[in-house]
Amino acid sequence: MKTPDWAELTRFAIALAEASADAILPYFRRNTAVDVKDGPVWDPVTEGDRAGERAIRALIERHYPDHGILGEEYGVKHGRSPFTWVLDPVDGTRAFVSGMPTWATLIGLTFEGSPVLGLMNQPVVGDMFHGNPEGAWHSYRGDVSPIRVRRGVPLARATVGTTAPELYRSAEDQRRFQDLRARAQLTRYGGDSYFFCLMAAGHIDIAMDCGLQPYDIAPLLPIVTGAGGVAAEWTGGDVAKGGNVITAGSQPLLEEALAIMAH
Amino acid sequence: MKTPDWAELTRFAIALAEASADAILPYFRRNTAVDVKDGPVWDPVTEGDRAGERAIRALIERHYPDHGILGEEYGVKHGRSPFTWVLDPVDGTRAFVSGMPTWATLIGLTFEGSPVLGLMNQPVVGDMFHGNPEGAWHSYRGDVSPIRVRRGVPLARATVGTTAPELYRSAEDQRRFQDLRARAQLTRYGGDSYFFCLMAAGHIDIAMDCGLQPYDIAPLLPIVTGAGGVAAEWTGGDVAKGGNVITAGSQPLLEEALAIMAH
Repeated sequence: MKTPDWAELTRFAIALAEASADAILPYFRRNTAVDVKDGPVWDPVTEGDRAGERAIRALIERHYPDHGILGEEYGVKHGRSPFTWVLDPVDGTRAFVSGMPTWATLIGLTFEGSPVLGLMNQPVVGDMFHGNPEGAWHSYRGDVSPIRVRRGVPLARATVGTTAPELYRSAEDQRRFQDLRARAQLTRYGGDSYFFCLMAAGHIDIAMDCGLQPYDIAPLLPIVTGAGGVAAEWTGGDVAKGGNVITAGSQPLLEEALAIMAH
Repeated sequence: MKTPDWAELTRFAIALAEASADAILPYFRRNTAVDVKDGPVWDPVTEGDRAGERAIRALIERHYPDHGILGEEYGVKHGRSPFTWVLDPVDGTRAFVSGMPTWATLIGLTFEGSPVLGLMNQPVVGDMFHGNPEGAWHSYRGDVSPIRVRRGVPLARATVGTTAPELYRSAEDQRRFQDLRARAQLTRYGGDSYFFCLMAAGHIDIAMDCGLQPYDIAPLLPIVTGAGGVAAEWTGGDVAKGGNVITAGSQPLLEEALAIMAH
């Protein structure tokens, strides 16, 4: 196979993110008092999520009809090509329904199951992060710059980002997470996919979460690795499949974190 | 005294927020690898915070030289007027140093110690919330709309926002907070002042935090009350002075929360 045209595939992924944003944004911050009377206050599977995925799938089917698709809302479409798009139009549905601009659209591309290209887009903010085998980039309202991880930071001086401490559900994971938190300099919650991108951009040092689905993490891995970061599943699984994922700015820091979390 | 011109004071507060944003934004997401070599990774008292406060104080001293000023960075200036401006140019310094666009500039105005006007501005996102005795408003990239709290939501269906569970430091507060969290439908972390504004705008139902300073909360109270929300200090103190603050969309919900937290 000739080398894929990463620039072209990246431009296509950005077009997917833009179409998805147009479909999702009319639903953001619309959970007003009216909705409370008519139904549940909290429905994380929003209409926005589905509208975003429909917009993305339509474009993939038109431009790359042979490619496979794995989406959170509409499941698997097997392709005739080794490429599969992995989609989570609203990652962070709990942030979305709370009105926080920290949810994101995740769009990944795998080749024979390995993540090769990924994109995170937060259209309310105007932040977009993307990565491929040639590197990783951040853009803010269209202003693009390459990103790199921060290296040389030991755990004692590291900032750690994870969604919430309660997600470490087993007593063993909870104890290990609290141990890691106590040894780090600063721990931040509530960032969802943002933390993986901010780690890649050198603003924090570790981004970790447990119980991830493939579509939660596969789109983020090319951003992490494209920026020089490293990733592992702390129970020994394939990180591209989700599960319990730690990403870090350097191999020594990843190993410090794994020494605490792995069991 | 004649009634203050709230529209004029609000326009001035917005001008303060814009001047502060211009001073702060050059420092946001600048904690790159270079800084790691040269000094501490995590310095929450950023240069941005100070630059923002200097910009705000200069404008107040020019336009309202009689007004008092209470700022996080540069302390108290006693005024000859009953009005005092209460400033926190970068509320959420931990979010700021982590690259998360969830910090905010808080600008409040008190009259004889009571908060009468308040503003929260997040310039990376383009979100601004403000309130005064005439109401409360949200603007996103300049598009302004009035906001109202969500009412009629019991704790069992409520979304709660608070900065981090570890901030409930005493064993008693921790036990009570975990009880409240277990009874609520959803708890979100990492929002700092955003949660108080999203509560006012009807996206979440309770925003609470402990150990607040006056400049952390005085600028938010006119947004909360202007949108129809209620607030209390759960150990019985004056909520405008900070401390342990719960705000809610309705009095019955506030009382449900206080019944758990107050001691």
